[in-house]
Amino acid sequence: MSNRISYIKGLHCPKCKKEYSEDQIRHLCDCGSPLLADYDLSEAAKNWKKEDLKNRKPDLWRYHEVLPVRQEENIVTLGEGFTPILPLKNAGKKIGLDHLFLKDEGVLPTGTFKARGAAVGISKAKELGVKTVAMPTNGNAGAAWSVYGAGAGIKTVIVMPEDAAKITRNECLVAGADLYLVKGLISDAGKIVARSIEKNGWYDASTLKEPYRIEGKKTMGYEILEQFGWEAPDAILYPTGGGVGIIGIYKALKELQELGWIEEKLPKLIAVQAEGCAPIVKAFREKKKESEFFEHSSTVAFGINVPKALGDFLVLEALYETNGTAVSVSDEEILGSVQEVAESEGIFTCPEGAALYAATKKLSKEGFLKAEDKVVLLNTGAGIIYPDTVRKEIPYLELDAVL
Amino acid sequence: MSNRISYIKGLHCPKCKKEYSEDQIRHLCDCGSPLLADYDLSEAAKNWKKEDLKNRKPDLWRYHEVLPVRQEENIVTLGEGFTPILPLKNAGKKIGLDHLFLKDEGVLPTGTFKARGAAVGISKAKELGVKTVAMPTNGNAGAAWSVYGAGAGIKTVIVMPEDAAKITRNECLVAGADLYLVKGLISDAGKIVARSIEKNGWYDASTLKEPYRIEGKKTMGYEILEQFGWEAPDAILYPTGGGVGIIGIYKALKELQELGWIEEKLPKLIAVQAEGCAPIVKAFREKKKESEFFEHSSTVAFGINVPKALGDFLVLEALYETNGTAVSVSDEEILGSVQEVAESEGIFTCPEGAALYAATKKLSKEGFLKAEDKVVLLNTGAGIIYPDTVRKEIPYLELDAVL
Repeated sequence: MSNRISYIKGLHCPKCKKEYSEDQIRHLCDCGSPLLADYDLSEAAKNWKKEDLKNRKPDLWRYHEVLPVRQEENIVTLGEGFTPILPLKNAGKKIGLDHLFLKDEGVLPTGTFKARGAAVGISKAKELGVKTVAMPTNGNAGAAWSVYGAGAGIKTVIVMPEDAAKITRNECLVAGADLYLVKGLISDAGKIVARSIEKNGWYDASTLKEPYRIEGKKTMGYEILEQFGWEAPDAILYPTGGGVGIIGIYKALKELQELGWIEEKLPKLIAVQAEGCAPIVKAFREKKKESEFFEHSSTVAFGINVPKALGDFLVLEALYETNGTAVSVSDEEILGSVQEVAESEGIFTCPEGAALYAATKKLSKEGFLKAEDKVVLLNTGAGIIYPDTVRKEIPYLELDAVL
Repeated sequence: MSNRISYIKGLHCPKCKKEYSEDQIRHLCDCGSPLLADYDLSEAAKNWKKEDLKNRKPDLWRYHEVLPVRQEENIVTLGEGFTPILPLKNAGKKIGLDHLFLKDEGVLPTGTFKARGAAVGISKAKELGVKTVAMPTNGNAGAAWSVYGAGAGIKTVIVMPEDAAKITRNECLVAGADLYLVKGLISDAGKIVARSIEKNGWYDASTLKEPYRIEGKKTMGYEILEQFGWEAPDAILYPTGGGVGIIGIYKALKELQELGWIEEKLPKLIAVQAEGCAPIVKAFREKKKESEFFEHSSTVAFGINVPKALGDFLVLEALYETNGTAVSVSDEEILGSVQEVAESEGIFTCPEGAALYAATKKLSKEGFLKAEDKVVLLNTGAGIIYPDTVRKEIPYLELDAVL
């Protein structure tokens, strides 16, 4: 038993508690809620020890016991995971924190954390015999699912707003995806995809509409705890759009407790949004269990421009249950933070990642975060994907110039 | 003694054999040759065992015994190194190789292998008390030295041809580097930098003009051997411009032999160039020890557009000594290979990395590489940095479309 690859045992609905088998293709629950994967953790705990990890490769598949893929040959990997946690010594000092860290997801394949969800989502889709997946995207997720799809031999159909990061188009194209643009928002792309899926019977890879992307994302939580020697930091800040990352990290923490690998203390989970799109922040302030559609949303942090997330109730639960909070920051603060983190640490964050630094500054000033707290920022992508966040003139030199 | 951080003991000239101390700033040898760093490997072998690596982080500093930085506090790291080695099962099959692998340097910070050289080069510069470094660049190296410079608190002055990859400009700027453009080639940028260094006394970080960039690059060799369980593969292909990578890997192999960690068998080292810039290939065919300036060089693989490398004699030595070879491929083959590798494996390589696949195809056909050979391609960067390698029209959809 000790070398079985996965302890997955089924799917359940976090809203109505209905259960489903994981051996068949399933999207949402009959009640409309996303589904979550369950594992036989008490059995896993008997055969799987922290020490086993020492001999495993530094990628997310080191946690295969709590990932949904049953057969190793279905794993499609580009080496994703186990991203570094870097101390922000200079930047931390500036804002009054002695133990500020950044987990850099920008060094994943495709340059964003979307690689985690795509690696696990595509691998499980392959195991389920899927031939074609389709999804709307603001860019990064589409790029990631396209390249992993290519590796799996699965066809991908991607619909993207024309304003989505240009670089991600190339990744879809080079991987052989069927890519389409719309003059509209991701919600418009979503409607086209939904209609096309209904017509063609494709696998729906939209955020939280299949239960396995979140399983890939949750490995961020496993990694943070392993990298900190299985002792929870005091707070984890996450840029929150669709919310899959924060839901995943919370799920990982609960699983780790059930495995007996970590103590009762959980890190405060903190959702960070842009002022121009802050439905979770609003709901949290009003102590609500669900968010409302955020009208006329707009922010430079394109990846978190999600006016109403399907999993909002799960995000809010994670914040309440860990005594976390929700904070919004302005686009100006975001762009300033891109520059500030790069200049003090050499890390070129994506705008979503930079938003976390701006939020930390606020929370430190307010006293929610204290000087001695161990605080982790999840930088979800590489800054190079977003060329427009840097706005400076570059001087030309004559050939005979001397500086 | 067992926890000393570095066994560096000096520098030597591979041409005239003159020796120098590593405790002072040194650029070229008095004879004009690049310098190489020496370590007390027999002493290291007594205290440092392969098994020690198991408990170290998956970054290049796991080999700190054979890196030049003496004091841990001088290390500036963004978590670089220990990049994955991915089996190219589908692509390998297509070209008749059963064990084709790609080491993906595209997942390093800044998206290219230049991060290795910059991490070690900047850390050692910090240790030497350097305040300002300057360099000409075709883009990627400048970006890498800028961000690591920011982390170290070292000022960077970068001069770049206006045709260099646009994305890399942003990394220099966001990190606070002084960036300048020239309407010319890297050689023109180089002349401006040389004059300015002479005037201002800056540290010269041009390729091979300081001895530590190569020390960072050589960790690719250490990693390949560790990742293959200390058994050398049959061949390693490397895209060759300035040649620091191949020189570094060869140096690593020799050091590993001296440490007693690997057997006598070395992998064949294979230099790959573009037909439009192939000075090493020409010299190799003519069995020469040095290359000649390649007139009117031109290729889509901008990173290997180097008409005459300062370290050409070291590259050629590495090829001769390992029974390797040198191959050139056309721009058309390069662009076709970008697409072919991405579609079959989901890996979006840089053009330089794609050139290796094209070269492997040739060498397999010619019989130089055999079906059973274990072959490793060093993909030196992420494809997303080079948006122009993908040329496809993208269709627009109406809002009421159904696919």
